[in-house]
Amino acid sequence: MKALRFDGNLKFVRNASAPQREGETLVRVICAGICNTDLEIVKGYSNFHGTPGHEFVGRVIESPDSSLVGERVVGEINAGCGVCGDCARGDSRHCVARTVLGIKGRDGAFAEFLSLPHRNLIRLPQAITDEAAIFVEPLSAALNILEQISVKPSDRIALIGDGKLAQLIVLALSDTVGSLSVIGRHPAKLQIAKEFGADQVCLENAARLPMNQRYDVVIEASGSPDGLTTALGMVRPRGTIVLKSTHHGLTSVDMSQVVVNEVTIVGSRCGRFQPAIEMLPKSQEKLLRLISQRFTLDEGLEAFEAASVAENMKVILQIDSGTGAHRSA
Amino acid sequence: MKALRFDGNLKFVRNASAPQREGETLVRVICAGICNTDLEIVKGYSNFHGTPGHEFVGRVIESPDSSLVGERVVGEINAGCGVCGDCARGDSRHCVARTVLGIKGRDGAFAEFLSLPHRNLIRLPQAITDEAAIFVEPLSAALNILEQISVKPSDRIALIGDGKLAQLIVLALSDTVGSLSVIGRHPAKLQIAKEFGADQVCLENAARLPMNQRYDVVIEASGSPDGLTTALGMVRPRGTIVLKSTHHGLTSVDMSQVVVNEVTIVGSRCGRFQPAIEMLPKSQEKLLRLISQRFTLDEGLEAFEAASVAENMKVILQIDSGTGAHRSA
Repeated sequence: MKALRFDGNLKFVRNASAPQREGETLVRVICAGICNTDLEIVKGYSNFHGTPGHEFVGRVIESPDSSLVGERVVGEINAGCGVCGDCARGDSRHCVARTVLGIKGRDGAFAEFLSLPHRNLIRLPQAITDEAAIFVEPLSAALNILEQISVKPSDRIALIGDGKLAQLIVLALSDTVGSLSVIGRHPAKLQIAKEFGADQVCLENAARLPMNQRYDVVIEASGSPDGLTTALGMVRPRGTIVLKSTHHGLTSVDMSQVVVNEVTIVGSRCGRFQPAIEMLPKSQEKLLRLISQRFTLDEGLEAFEAASVAENMKVILQIDSGTGAHRSA
Repeated sequence: MKALRFDGNLKFVRNASAPQREGETLVRVICAGICNTDLEIVKGYSNFHGTPGHEFVGRVIESPDSSLVGERVVGEINAGCGVCGDCARGDSRHCVARTVLGIKGRDGAFAEFLSLPHRNLIRLPQAITDEAAIFVEPLSAALNILEQISVKPSDRIALIGDGKLAQLIVLALSDTVGSLSVIGRHPAKLQIAKEFGADQVCLENAARLPMNQRYDVVIEASGSPDGLTTALGMVRPRGTIVLKSTHHGLTSVDMSQVVVNEVTIVGSRCGRFQPAIEMLPKSQEKLLRLISQRFTLDEGLEAFEAASVAENMKVILQIDSGTGAHRSA
């Protein structure tokens, strides 16, 4: 089958082996989105080698759960061991032995086919389009913030970042929080954040940064290693920083500021899919505005280049041509 | 008066001006303790110039509150502006305009006299000895952990560090928590931790570190910039790290681990004095075991050297000779 492969360099190959994991479900990928984590992976993040990609919608080809065959699905990307305490509690997202689609020990979605345990797959309501479905995974990650921290209506929230994930966070929070300020580097993207529900937007620029140390909660979703230092300069004493960005490599931080101001830092990664699926039908028109460019799988390298251009937002790979071609490898 | 002064170099001087702050209370220092923060200050932490020292017991010489004169006191080290929201809520520890005794904008306790607002001073019960009273401030900081995080009896807690503050944390937590493991670098200090109530102690040494990623809470009080990285390797997914150490300079950390494992980091600094004063009478015998050496103020530089020797614990400056000498400057 066709696939993108990363082995220190990203390549497009025509003859990749189709994934065949015992007892799992085979999914033909309809389309997939490139996320910042994918851009970090091709810089070395997570030491992943194989097929990247974890934001996808696809159709089930083969499954031990025959009711799934033919269904259009999205998939939770963490595949737990199924037996440890975390898995037993239904939280395979933190199973120490987990594999993660396109990130850790498991080939991902930038290919014609992928494999996941059937318990990871969720049928998509018809009301959700293929392209909007790409956003289920990152929107879940955005909504996860509200499951991790409690936000009071009077809280002043700042969000650092105006990229893809940041915009989803605006959508996820704007109905819940009383005051949401977005600090970004791109006027056009900040305009979208405003339309998505941000109360204030602000260009990141020392001279125009909002008041120091006054936000109750600062969400760092800039994708930049500097983001945490910026957040530390904005959060009030005893306030909370939610960290969303993952990077390859180390971050240099003045951790004494965390101690002296008694700041709480909450790491936040994936979320449950169901709340995102419930939210999507009313939000998908907005979400489609986040798509900057579309490529075929054959154009995958070009797609990665486009995704790394700062002005761009979501770049999508349209993988299933609709010709009905089956497993070719 | 005699004082230690730091202006880029630490010096002992005989002719320092006695502190005279309008409307404040003048305290003659009986004795004072050297803490890791003091050692960091003379490396440049907090950009402080002046007289360091913030752990003290003293006797009130002059005060607008005449009932305080002659009383033996300890003092909360943060002096707030008195009018901002934080101060109005009684939390001058986070007032943005605060000065901090011997740390920020206010001369400290390594001198014959110090000045603090009278609302910062707390009378000491007679049952508490002068030397035990030195521990009120750091014991408050240790007890503060229990005000910041909720600990379940079933939680497994690890404490990184076996120094002065770490030992006070053992004392502060051992009655409350079900399982407390202390990881340190000095067998003799680990022995004290065990006597203070630690359930397990362990030499920090990769081969003998306890199971990876299994602690619900990891408290970092090693005073070492590496401590956070060690803590990240020990905390379970979705667990909590309490950060106690302050350092001069930046710390390099793999913050992606915080995100991926959804770890919460809680910065923790000072605490309320009252719980520490209540706890002291029954703990002071143990606390006195933490005192490694005693020096006079004239021997202050030697005392700082002793305090920076890894094998030593608390080093104390005995300042008031008991001759009744009054302000000499």
